[in-house]
Amino acid sequence: MSHLANEDDVAADILSAIYAPVQDELVQVEDLLQRELRSEHPTVDELVRYGVRLGGKRLRPALVLLAGRACGDLAPSHIILSAVVEMIHTATLVHDDILDEATIRRHVDTVNARWNNEKSVLLGDFLFTHAFYLASTTGSTYACRTIGRSTNIVCEGELRQTGSSGNLELTEEEYFDIIRAKTAELCACCCRLGAHFAGADSTVEDALCQFGRNLGIAFQIADDLLDLLGDEATTGKSLGTDLEKRKMTLPLIHLLSQATPAEREELPGLLLGQENGGHSTALLRRLESSGSIDYARRQADEFVQQAIECLTVLPASRARGVLEQMCQFVVARRE
Amino acid sequence: MSHLANEDDVAADILSAIYAPVQDELVQVEDLLQRELRSEHPTVDELVRYGVRLGGKRLRPALVLLAGRACGDLAPSHIILSAVVEMIHTATLVHDDILDEATIRRHVDTVNARWNNEKSVLLGDFLFTHAFYLASTTGSTYACRTIGRSTNIVCEGELRQTGSSGNLELTEEEYFDIIRAKTAELCACCCRLGAHFAGADSTVEDALCQFGRNLGIAFQIADDLLDLLGDEATTGKSLGTDLEKRKMTLPLIHLLSQATPAEREELPGLLLGQENGGHSTALLRRLESSGSIDYARRQADEFVQQAIECLTVLPASRARGVLEQMCQFVVARRE
Repeated sequence: MSHLANEDDVAADILSAIYAPVQDELVQVEDLLQRELRSEHPTVDELVRYGVRLGGKRLRPALVLLAGRACGDLAPSHIILSAVVEMIHTATLVHDDILDEATIRRHVDTVNARWNNEKSVLLGDFLFTHAFYLASTTGSTYACRTIGRSTNIVCEGELRQTGSSGNLELTEEEYFDIIRAKTAELCACCCRLGAHFAGADSTVEDALCQFGRNLGIAFQIADDLLDLLGDEATTGKSLGTDLEKRKMTLPLIHLLSQATPAEREELPGLLLGQENGGHSTALLRRLESSGSIDYARRQADEFVQQAIECLTVLPASRARGVLEQMCQFVVARRE
Repeated sequence: MSHLANEDDVAADILSAIYAPVQDELVQVEDLLQRELRSEHPTVDELVRYGVRLGGKRLRPALVLLAGRACGDLAPSHIILSAVVEMIHTATLVHDDILDEATIRRHVDTVNARWNNEKSVLLGDFLFTHAFYLASTTGSTYACRTIGRSTNIVCEGELRQTGSSGNLELTEEEYFDIIRAKTAELCACCCRLGAHFAGADSTVEDALCQFGRNLGIAFQIADDLLDLLGDEATTGKSLGTDLEKRKMTLPLIHLLSQATPAEREELPGLLLGQENGGHSTALLRRLESSGSIDYARRQADEFVQQAIECLTVLPASRARGVLEQMCQFVVARRE
């Protein structure tokens, strides 16, 4: 399983079963990433190769390939674009780790922890620009435009998120707007490209895009829950950074919306006073007793159902079945 | 002079004369930048608009337009690609200012100083991705590929530069390799695109590309000298950051190469001990007396001559004359 960073991982085994229908293509994507992400200059080469390992689960390439397979035949562009979206995803991770001051990711040191912020900024830029270059080698301006626009929406979402940090008035609607941009947009883009380059008509392409968007939203809610409830050893990444960075996530927004006037007085201290990773027992108890954790889980499940519903535009196939399985995996994952 | 950040600037007047043959097109580029770089979300909008102002002299759009005009007629793609290269340039500036911990740029606070590094990282990413999206709207994968590859080379050059920080063994050849990538590549790209979209044949396109490369090298040497000798009030940006960041520049490399064994013993302390902006009188005296400042100036002049030589492939024209003038401006500039 050369495309997975952590070979003896249980989750990796599950994924390898899920990814089976596009296994050969994922190996080609991995080869392409290895070939493209290198430099003749040793210090640059070391850094860039380190970056290739950080993405991990290769969920986004799998989305491109499975969406393509579910709609028709895979073409060489699918391999290229799978590598492109993985590079973009990795670039955003590397830059996110600067913002979050995270120190571990995929069980290894983050770039900012192992080197410094300077290298992280430049490695992210290197990955972004290489991704755009590689996208252009498909010869399709549709691909370049779709990827450029989606990536720009991701950045705008991230900017909105930092702007809403510590804002206890953030509504659920605004929260969903932000995660639709910062996380779901790239998943939507992956599925759109997969469908498009398999020759899907625009109705099917739009449905696959909407599938990816719903999946991405469910994924982000699950990620928010992991950051609160997860275990660093299992997830292999720094947790509790949402609270540290005063990021408003769905369970917190729900908790605030349920609070009595008296509770609202004390909640800001409980939420924003988190300094040490935020796994405050008192806060977690409140999130449980108010039903906020369950609420977020139910929301994630609902988006999974909506995602699966989008796939009914397609005939039954192994690839379609796998896309459905991925939805279940995304909300059940522990890393 | 809406396209210049600082309206009452002497340099701006000189530039407005230089840019005269493409003045109308520069106004269109400015309008396009203003239209493209906005957001419906107020906090994002404020930041993005601030970013538009930072680029300043609009040298790179002028290169696209003048190279185009010197080779033939300007097309709508020239306007789009001019805005694209300016966005890319601004993205690299915003990220550079994080690395350099610079606080002023174009007479205004840098993004990292006015907001923070987090916003700077994301604004740079927003600009990069928007630039790539905009490039794709030309409908030309040649444009996307050329811009993607050049920008990736720029990032690799920046990574090599940070890798060579404080390396007193850096050779002149390595120095030129680095600035050819980090600065000259984007200028070369501008001129190539300008020529290409004016219908130039590949010989002329290559010559214009080489013109831009030589101009960019001269520009960077002049920039290195400014960082040592300039005045913050005139340049409107933080200076002395090269020494602070232990960046090896041409005058320093020359000084080291000229030093006697005894001098080589004490030079590292003089060069690397700079903590307060590096305008050390002792160091500047040494750079003067060793002829290192003059040497760097002569090198810059030589690249200007080589740049002008490249233009002889073109018939005489006003635009060609202006490109020659720009070379002179680049080495004579005080900001």
